[in-house]
Amino acid sequence: MLKIDAARLYRAIEALGRIGAYVDEPTGLTGVNRLALTDADGEGRRQVLAWMRELGLDVTVDRIGNVYARRAGREDTLPPVVIGSHIDSVPTAGRFDGCLGVLGGLEIVRTLHESNIRTRRPIVVAFFTDEEGSRFGTDMLGSAVATGRLPLESAYALRDRQGLAVRDELERIGFLGPAPVETIQRMPPHAYLECHIEQGPILRARERDIGVVTGVQAISWQALTITGKSAHAGTTPMHLRADAGVAAAKVNLRLREMIASGRYGEPMRATMGAIVPHPGMVNIVPGRALATVDLRNPSEEDMRRAEADLISYYTQVEREEKVRIEWRRTARTEPVPFDPKIQDRIAAAADALGLGHERIISGAGHDAQELARLCPTAMVFVPGEHDGISHNPREYSTPEQCASGVNVMLQIALDLAEE
Amino acid sequence: MLKIDAARLYRAIEALGRIGAYVDEPTGLTGVNRLALTDADGEGRRQVLAWMRELGLDVTVDRIGNVYARRAGREDTLPPVVIGSHIDSVPTAGRFDGCLGVLGGLEIVRTLHESNIRTRRPIVVAFFTDEEGSRFGTDMLGSAVATGRLPLESAYALRDRQGLAVRDELERIGFLGPAPVETIQRMPPHAYLECHIEQGPILRARERDIGVVTGVQAISWQALTITGKSAHAGTTPMHLRADAGVAAAKVNLRLREMIASGRYGEPMRATMGAIVPHPGMVNIVPGRALATVDLRNPSEEDMRRAEADLISYYTQVEREEKVRIEWRRTARTEPVPFDPKIQDRIAAAADALGLGHERIISGAGHDAQELARLCPTAMVFVPGEHDGISHNPREYSTPEQCASGVNVMLQIALDLAEE
Repeated sequence: MLKIDAARLYRAIEALGRIGAYVDEPTGLTGVNRLALTDADGEGRRQVLAWMRELGLDVTVDRIGNVYARRAGREDTLPPVVIGSHIDSVPTAGRFDGCLGVLGGLEIVRTLHESNIRTRRPIVVAFFTDEEGSRFGTDMLGSAVATGRLPLESAYALRDRQGLAVRDELERIGFLGPAPVETIQRMPPHAYLECHIEQGPILRARERDIGVVTGVQAISWQALTITGKSAHAGTTPMHLRADAGVAAAKVNLRLREMIASGRYGEPMRATMGAIVPHPGMVNIVPGRALATVDLRNPSEEDMRRAEADLISYYTQVEREEKVRIEWRRTARTEPVPFDPKIQDRIAAAADALGLGHERIISGAGHDAQELARLCPTAMVFVPGEHDGISHNPREYSTPEQCASGVNVMLQIALDLAEE
Repeated sequence: MLKIDAARLYRAIEALGRIGAYVDEPTGLTGVNRLALTDADGEGRRQVLAWMRELGLDVTVDRIGNVYARRAGREDTLPPVVIGSHIDSVPTAGRFDGCLGVLGGLEIVRTLHESNIRTRRPIVVAFFTDEEGSRFGTDMLGSAVATGRLPLESAYALRDRQGLAVRDELERIGFLGPAPVETIQRMPPHAYLECHIEQGPILRARERDIGVVTGVQAISWQALTITGKSAHAGTTPMHLRADAGVAAAKVNLRLREMIASGRYGEPMRATMGAIVPHPGMVNIVPGRALATVDLRNPSEEDMRRAEADLISYYTQVEREEKVRIEWRRTARTEPVPFDPKIQDRIAAAADALGLGHERIISGAGHDAQELARLCPTAMVFVPGEHDGISHNPREYSTPEQCASGVNVMLQIALDLAEE
């Protein structure tokens, strides 16, 4: 079977990881900070474009900065197989998140070149703008615009904390491209494939090489504003208090109980990531607290039930703690199932390559969930060390783990490109 | 019976409250910001010194900026009766906290002047530097130094967030006085009296004019550092999490349960005022959380039991949540009982004036707890409106409420100064 060059792929991952590298103070580890549309992102993009051109690919940049690099097929007017991901990062990233998918795509092209294989359909390697959403607050930005979920003008108007707008920053780094954002809709793709690190502990714990991704689970985010009454911690009797911090604590522990109850399915996840009590002083009962809730569930039905039950619990806390709880939805996506036929092919390819595999739901959002609106879509996960930690300089997958994922992608891409 | 001029006292409170006044944005109310050793504090101090000198008092400023204004007695070498409090404020204060005690003392002197009463013992009206501790982090600073609990050099070395030191700021505002800090120890006082707003809801709720303060309760502050493991909220199974935010929530609710159990006495108070989860993002399981604990109890024995039980609960949470909880004591004072004989006299004076009264423990710290090391000490509380809210522009006591407290003080001061 045709295989990629694992060492060459890994050298590319290391080389891209040097752009935007920084030393993480507490640990001394080297991390990556290539926030979308910063100078570092611009430099990373130019490196990847240079590699694309070295490979003789035909590069297109669209109005939101998405990049498509096209390798011609034998029947070049057929819809292409698109392989993609992103190269922007969170501020405290490792080298693998997103980059594996893009550089894996280029390694597949390089392998086809070397073997003088010309596929029936064209193959496009793509990277999408600002998948992370860390800077402008909206994740999957480029792929959401390209697939028509988000209007271009709304994307352009987003601003970072310094007030800088997406459009201006695209222009500044030289990636306000000439092609229409509908470029990918006009291809349209025959299939979209994305190889990504799992960003979780499951594959590593079960000693699997490959995750056959069944889909992306539903995500529900809420921002809570809890209003009680600030009071002197030394003088205010407990029965006269309306402690917004205690109310937030109750909601946090309720999330835990909801999971433990099993009523919303085993795969449910729930997290209170942020809590900000005001005024936040040792001797003042918090009169106000902001808090966030993150719910995930592969079942839309279970998710809806969890949301409804949580909201009715807020009413109970309001009564018990004499507070007011206002909640606002800050994100909500339904589950996105991936193409079952391509899933079966991924499993078969892994078997053929002697790789252990397992079906797995994606806990995180990915560009693939946007592309799934356009064409049959699939994802391949590879395991990560250290419980699959991600968004952290400790993020690490071995050269072999990375290569296994891309080798599976290579077989599937070849298959699909011959259809 | 001799009485003070309620309207005159109130005008002085209003006049001092104009120094450092600001408009509180959300409410439109006028608050007071006279943080210790700022320009506003200097201006407030000069105003009070001007009033002291108008009354012909002999003013002494010590090396930590405490101010003593002395009215001669018939037997002028006898230990004086000292009436005092503070005029510095928190950044979001009202007009009454501290100022009532100092201006009440001056109103008592003014009343004695007008009635041509010369007491046997001298009377000293005092205000102490930085009772609030909001700027340099140590409360009761001036009275702690004056009574020998805190070395002068330690106090001088304290710095605010801008790095400005107490000694330099004292000098800058012109209150690095020439008198030794032992000035009050050398008098020594025959008794110390302090009139203060309750800063709580009890007297108002029970429709009492006067609180006969039995003492100051024990205070125990802890700063917790909870270390878990940050993780992706979408991908990390619940059983692999070590959520520092959940651990903080458990401690917060445990405080509530400890109160409800009644095991530590009805007057126990417990508060988690601050919680800071890191990194504090909606989709990241907090890997670390800082939190504070504030415990109050009038019984040292109950306090020690509560502290020990809480610390052993930390061990339980460490086990349950796979986190590490480090705690550090940031403040600890034992209960300070006030002089029972003066308490009885306060009750009798209130009866004689037709004022309702009730014994009450002080939930907050006061200069009186420092002075209690030197001499028989007592405090008189007056009620506040709006549940006794304090450290807030809504802090409010009526002219009558203020005058009632100072009239009781006048009778006690006269009594004690004739002994």
